[in-house]
Amino acid sequence: MEMAKIGPGIAGGNNRQTLTDEDGEGRHLFKKWCDAAGLEMGVDEMGTMFARREGTDPDALPVYVGSHLDTQPTGGKFDGVLGVLGGLEVMRTLNDLGIKTRHPIVVANWTNEEGTRFAPAMLASGVFAGVLDQDYAYARTDAHGARFGDELERIGWKGTEKVGARKMKAFFELHIEQGPILEDEDIDIGVVTHGQGLKWLQVTLTGREAHTGSTPMYKRRNAGLGMARVTELVHEIAMDYQPDAVGAVGHMEVYPNSRNIIAGRTVFTIDIRSPEKEVLDAMDGRIREGIATICEALDISYEIEQVGHFDPVAFDESCVKAVRDAAERLGYSHRDIVSGAGHDACWINRVAPTAMVFCPCVDGLSHNEDEEIYPEWAAAGCDVLFHAVVETAEI
Amino acid sequence: MEMAKIGPGIAGGNNRQTLTDEDGEGRHLFKKWCDAAGLEMGVDEMGTMFARREGTDPDALPVYVGSHLDTQPTGGKFDGVLGVLGGLEVMRTLNDLGIKTRHPIVVANWTNEEGTRFAPAMLASGVFAGVLDQDYAYARTDAHGARFGDELERIGWKGTEKVGARKMKAFFELHIEQGPILEDEDIDIGVVTHGQGLKWLQVTLTGREAHTGSTPMYKRRNAGLGMARVTELVHEIAMDYQPDAVGAVGHMEVYPNSRNIIAGRTVFTIDIRSPEKEVLDAMDGRIREGIATICEALDISYEIEQVGHFDPVAFDESCVKAVRDAAERLGYSHRDIVSGAGHDACWINRVAPTAMVFCPCVDGLSHNEDEEIYPEWAAAGCDVLFHAVVETAEI
Ligand SMILES: NC(=O)NCCC(=O)O
Ligand SMILES: NC(=O)NCCC(=O)O
Repeated sequence: MEMAKIGPGIAGGNNRQTLTDEDGEGRHLFKKWCDAAGLEMGVDEMGTMFARREGTDPDALPVYVGSHLDTQPTGGKFDGVLGVLGGLEVMRTLNDLGIKTRHPIVVANWTNEEGTRFAPAMLASGVFAGVLDQDYAYARTDAHGARFGDELERIGWKGTEKVGARKMKAFFELHIEQGPILEDEDIDIGVVTHGQGLKWLQVTLTGREAHTGSTPMYKRRNAGLGMARVTELVHEIAMDYQPDAVGAVGHMEVYPNSRNIIAGRTVFTIDIRSPEKEVLDAMDGRIREGIATICEALDISYEIEQVGHFDPVAFDESCVKAVRDAAERLGYSHRDIVSGAGHDACWINRVAPTAMVFCPCVDGLSHNEDEEIYPEWAAAGCDVLFHAVVETAEI
Repeated sequence: MEMAKIGPGIAGGNNRQTLTDEDGEGRHLFKKWCDAAGLEMGVDEMGTMFARREGTDPDALPVYVGSHLDTQPTGGKFDGVLGVLGGLEVMRTLNDLGIKTRHPIVVANWTNEEGTRFAPAMLASGVFAGVLDQDYAYARTDAHGARFGDELERIGWKGTEKVGARKMKAFFELHIEQGPILEDEDIDIGVVTHGQGLKWLQVTLTGREAHTGSTPMYKRRNAGLGMARVTELVHEIAMDYQPDAVGAVGHMEVYPNSRNIIAGRTVFTIDIRSPEKEVLDAMDGRIREGIATICEALDISYEIEQVGHFDPVAFDESCVKAVRDAAERLGYSHRDIVSGAGHDACWINRVAPTAMVFCPCVDGLSHNEDEEIYPEWAAAGCDVLFHAVVETAEI
C-alpha cells in the first residue's frame, strides 16, 4: 500500500502524526489519487480535504464518506486510512461502472483525528460541527510548544474554505472496529448504532523535588507516587463499571525525571469512556474526589484540565438502517455494535445524519503497529459502504 | 558565586550535568582558580581533576579533599560544589597564611557524581576505587544514546593519567547534609561515620500497545499500570523499613506515551537505600517478588537491570576522629551522622582512609534548585575541613 510507505513506523506500522511533514506527504498522495479519479478537491481552514464527484443534480446535497489519514506515533496502517481510501474506492468503482448518482459524493480526510500530537482528538470535525472553536483549535500546542495553526500553515494545507460551511445529506464512515467483538463472534460487519462518550483529564501534580536518598520518608512530597496512585485509581474505577466503561492513563511526564530526585511535578492524561453519560459523569466525579484524597495524603497539590470530551452518541436511525440493510442484502453476517473509540462521525452526527461501518481487525488490536486486517474483511466493509452510500446518493 | 553562573537552572539553581558544555565550562573556571592558587593540575582518563599543592616532603602521600562540580538537571548550587570549592579554600588559606604542610594536599573534582545523565552515580570515583570497570564506564549511555567516553572526549577533559594510580594518605569530603537532621537539631557539623547502601534497579515492563477506548479491560496488558503498581510497592516496602530505609521511583519513561494508547512499554528506575545491608537485600528481594506478582496479574513481562549499587559504608575511624576532634576543638556543635546520599567518599573509602564533614542545608532540601545554605554553616564546614586536613597533612 503506497500510503503506508509514508511515515513508516519502527515495527511495520506508521508514524504519520498530524501536521508533520509525513502528514503533508500523505495528503499529496491522496490528492494525486483524487485528481486521477476526476474528483474536485476543496480544503477548509482546518486543513480538512474534501474530494467531490459531481452528481446529476449538482444542487442536491452531497453524501459524504471518509475518515482520517493521520496516525498515532506507533499507529497501524488501517486506523482511519481504510475509511478514506475505502471512500476513494467507492468513487473509482462508480467511475469504472459508469454510474452517475443524483447526489454528489464527497470523500473527506479530516485533520487531526488521533489527538496525540494536539489534544483533543477529532479536532477538525469538532470545529466543523461547531462544538470546538477554531481559535481554540489553532492555539493547541504539541509537546514542543508548536501551535496547531502554525503547523497547518507550515505544511501548506491551510485551505480558504470556511469550516462547517458544507451541508451534507449524510455522512458514512468506514473504520476498523479496534476492538475484539466482531472477530471473536466471527462477524463480517459491525453496524455502529452508538459511540461511547469520552473524557480526557490532564492532571498536573505538584510536590517537591528532593533527594531520594537523604530525604526521610515523612518529608517527601512525591508527585510520582501521586501519579502512580491516580493511575491505579482510574483502573479500579473502570473495573467497577466494566463492561460499561474503560479507563487508563497512557500519557505520563515526570519532572525532572532523574533517578535520584523525588518527582516535583508530574503531568498525565486520564482517558475514561462509557456508552452511558451517567456512568461517565460518575467516573469523573469519583476520580476528582480520589485525586483530592490522594493529594491530601501526600501533601501535594493538583490541577485538572479537561482536554477532551464528547458525550455518548446515537447515530442516525435511517443511516444506520442503510448500513444494516446493505449488509443484509449483500449476505454478510452483521451485528449492531457500539464504538469504543471516538470517530469524526461522532461529531458530524451533530450536523448531518451519520452512521458508521465497522469491519473486524485481528485480535482487536489497534493503536499498535501490529494492527492488521484481512483483505476479505476490508472488501466486505467497502462493499457495504458502497451500497449504503449509493443507495443514499440515489442512482 | 561565579560557578553557579555556569549552567543556570530555571529557578535559581543549576543544570550543569556531567560532560555537557556547561560541565566543561565549570571545569575551566575551576582550573583557572587552581592555577591562580599555584596548584598543579592533573586529569585522569575518567576526566577527574586533581589540583596539587606541594608538601615539604614531596614523597609523603598526599591528603586529598574534594567532591564534584556536576549537578542534577534541576540541581542546587551547593551539592558537590561546596566540597570542591571548600577544598580550594583550604589551599588558598594555607597560601595566605604561608603554611607549608609536610604532605602534599590535592583537591579533586570527581567526574559524574550525580549519575542522572549517565547511571550509575559516582562513576569516576567508582572506577578509581576499582569497583567499576573503565570500559563499562565509557560505554554508559545517556537518554539520547550518547556514550560517556565520547562525551568526555568531546568536551576535551579526557586526561592521560591512569585512573586509580594515585595513592592517598587520606580523603576528606565536605558536603551539605541533603537531609533535615542537623538543621532540625540546630547542630553545626555532622561527623559522618557511615553512608547508607544503595541499589538502583532499572525495570522494563513490556505489555501491549492497544487502544484506550475500544480495548476491553480484560484484554489490556498495561505496562503503565504495572509501573504505577511497582512505584506504590517500592513506597510501601520503604515505609515498612523506615527510618532504616528509603525508596522511590524518580525516573519513568512511557512508550509510546500517547493519551489514547495503553502503554506497551515502560522503563523506570527504583532507588532503594538503607544503612543496613540486610535491610537493603531484604527490600531488593521483596521488590523482585512483588514485580513478578504484579506482572503476572497484568500479563506483562519484565526485565530488571541493576544500574547502580553500593554497600553501606563505615568510614575510617581515625579520619572520622580527625573531623570530630576538629569540630570539638573549634567549639562547633556536632553529632555523628549517617549519610543518606551516596558520595565519592563512599568509593574512595575502599582504597584510602576516608571521612566526610556535613553541614546543614535549609529544610534538608537538595536535588532541588531551591537548595540553600547559610554562609555561617558553610564557614563552619570549611573550618572543620581545614583543620582535619591540615592536622592529617602535618605542619
Ligand atoms: N478511532 C480512533 O482511534 N480515534 C482516536 C480518538 C480516540 O481515542 O478514540
Ligand atoms: N550526594 C549526592 O547527591 N549524590 C548523588 C548520588 C546519590 O543519589 O546519592
